[in-house]
Amino acid sequence: MRVLILGGDGYLGWPTALHLSKQGHDVAVVDNYLRRNLCREENVEALYKTPNLHERAAIWKTHTDKTIDITIGDLCDWDVVEDVFREYQPECIIHYAEQPSAPYSMLNRKASTLTLKNNIEVTANTIFAVKEFCPDAHLIKLGTMGEYGTPNIDIEEGWLDIQHNGRKQKFLYPRAAGSLYHTTKVMDTDLLWFYVRTWGLKVTDLMQGPVYGMFTNETLIDTQLQPFFNYDEMFGTVINRFLVQAVAGYPLTVYGKGGQTRGYLNIVDTLQCVQLSLENPADSGELRIMNQFTETFSVNELAEMVKKSASNLGIEVKIKPVKNPRKELEEHYYNPKHSAFNELGLRPTLLDTNVLEKIMKTILCHREEINKDIIFSKRASWC
Amino acid sequence: MRVLILGGDGYLGWPTALHLSKQGHDVAVVDNYLRRNLCREENVEALYKTPNLHERAAIWKTHTDKTIDITIGDLCDWDVVEDVFREYQPECIIHYAEQPSAPYSMLNRKASTLTLKNNIEVTANTIFAVKEFCPDAHLIKLGTMGEYGTPNIDIEEGWLDIQHNGRKQKFLYPRAAGSLYHTTKVMDTDLLWFYVRTWGLKVTDLMQGPVYGMFTNETLIDTQLQPFFNYDEMFGTVINRFLVQAVAGYPLTVYGKGGQTRGYLNIVDTLQCVQLSLENPADSGELRIMNQFTETFSVNELAEMVKKSASNLGIEVKIKPVKNPRKELEEHYYNPKHSAFNELGLRPTLLDTNVLEKIMKTILCHREEINKDIIFSKRASWC
Repeated sequence: MRVLILGGDGYLGWPTALHLSKQGHDVAVVDNYLRRNLCREENVEALYKTPNLHERAAIWKTHTDKTIDITIGDLCDWDVVEDVFREYQPECIIHYAEQPSAPYSMLNRKASTLTLKNNIEVTANTIFAVKEFCPDAHLIKLGTMGEYGTPNIDIEEGWLDIQHNGRKQKFLYPRAAGSLYHTTKVMDTDLLWFYVRTWGLKVTDLMQGPVYGMFTNETLIDTQLQPFFNYDEMFGTVINRFLVQAVAGYPLTVYGKGGQTRGYLNIVDTLQCVQLSLENPADSGELRIMNQFTETFSVNELAEMVKKSASNLGIEVKIKPVKNPRKELEEHYYNPKHSAFNELGLRPTLLDTNVLEKIMKTILCHREEINKDIIFSKRASWC
Repeated sequence: MRVLILGGDGYLGWPTALHLSKQGHDVAVVDNYLRRNLCREENVEALYKTPNLHERAAIWKTHTDKTIDITIGDLCDWDVVEDVFREYQPECIIHYAEQPSAPYSMLNRKASTLTLKNNIEVTANTIFAVKEFCPDAHLIKLGTMGEYGTPNIDIEEGWLDIQHNGRKQKFLYPRAAGSLYHTTKVMDTDLLWFYVRTWGLKVTDLMQGPVYGMFTNETLIDTQLQPFFNYDEMFGTVINRFLVQAVAGYPLTVYGKGGQTRGYLNIVDTLQCVQLSLENPADSGELRIMNQFTETFSVNELAEMVKKSASNLGIEVKIKPVKNPRKELEEHYYNPKHSAFNELGLRPTLLDTNVLEKIMKTILCHREEINKDIIFSKRASWC
């Protein structure tokens, strides 16, 4: 299948490109290096250097003789969008091309504006391009479990049947996100749902939880193929952040009471979920929404698990609650459903100390490169 | 009170400026003439010419000795936003500054992109400006009843208490709009709700139905003070459009089955509602949502009422169903609540043939200026 990956340089975009290329798909990726540029500007570089997209594609070609087509360009620019859709005529589009950091989106007005414009414009351009150039293509969009927030009722997969004054209606599950970044994903969902109804597009919207991990089957071929690994307060997700803190001898920074519970998944399960979505496309006129995570943990549970894994490697770690820089409930009900992917055949890789130790061993090789100053500078606050 | 009206040149913005100036408020308005420019570009000019904002303000000054401050500028541009907020230090901001046409928003990619960018960016800039320059100010935002669409259950005022699997949560009433324009208003609501929660802003979001009418107490002073009056398929609302069609001897173009039911209000009630909102501000951290209309009608009912009014003036009118250029339900349940404004003291001006005949008499004076070609050109289709 001809697959176009938008945001193909990212933490998930690049491993997805490798995975689908390995499966025999014709893969093209587009990226404007926004994530790399923002990390450099904010001085929160990833743990290790990563070759650029052309270099990575060349490395992949050397090992597998498979070609991944690369376009460097800004998908907010319609000329770029038109060029890549005309050239590749994709049958499936996987849209990761968003500013992905919640703390960055709350940093200041400039960062908020960038996040809002980038995420909404790329999604809109993608919708317009599908309509114009490949109306039968399947659009797989990365949303986030954070769109739902932490409501006091069970979280269903995207939709909710509501009974009210004796009548019934099925609605998009009401959303209430906790950052501007997450709110842009809610707005994306509004746009997608409108155009699915109006133009009969085929869309899968994946409500993904925070992802952890460093390795996929394809990156094991060559460490140069590994994705970015951020551990700072802005671009690092919590498990990756804790693992680096443990190795650096920095206390694990639990925000507030640490009862914040979320649904997590291993990066290899992101690839499985995207592949399952691609192999089981949405129908025409369907906005299919699936909750993409495998298990839930509170921040305290994660900190304890990282502490235990570190201890197994002979590293003693402290857990230190810090004033929460975010506006969020620190203790709450959380019961999100996630059966859709299991029904499609997902075989989860669950979190345990073995998984954590394997990542931590690689982090240990980069111990000298860790910049402790960026772990918790309190810049990323939205209270 | 120092009141800043964003989009103060528009069909509702200008009469609001006059009304609040008359009440003794210090009124400043900002506009970039987007609506005028789009109407000129699309060749769908209003029924009669309207002086520019500076000219209108001078006419108002002549009659009342009251000053309305004018700034011409694009509120997507932060420099403009910063200048007006710094200069006027508003205590209340009334935000009408959006591309207001649903059909225009569906015209083509360029129009869609303009609508999306303009509406979201102005709302975001307004939020950022309130936070930065006047965090205690009350922001009154014009939303639309169209945000809700036509669900099969009663429409509450903005919020819905949901019971699910034995637990309860209050949510934003789930929205499903029928055009991109209406969807941008849904996205605005998402943004406002996020920042109200996060920053404790005071926001009133008015879910307004289609407005009709030409006169307010203030415009009666001088016909030069009347608002735009569009009657084309893009920028004209349905009642205003039917009235001109009747005068022009054009059949009333009912889209499809004509069972589309909406909540309507007279322009004088828009002014009352905005004034009531201003005099009864939202609390800090409150997103207060009120449904702003006074009565519901189906398109068929409106066509019949216009036909009867025309007949009273000796004009015989035909009603002609045409293929619906819009994607919408033509027969549906519709039971939206609207008690909040009544509780605040709204005294509605209801629709009857007298009201319609009065407007029609003015249209008769402009009979020769009506351009029949723009009444129903079928350009504005989104099927």
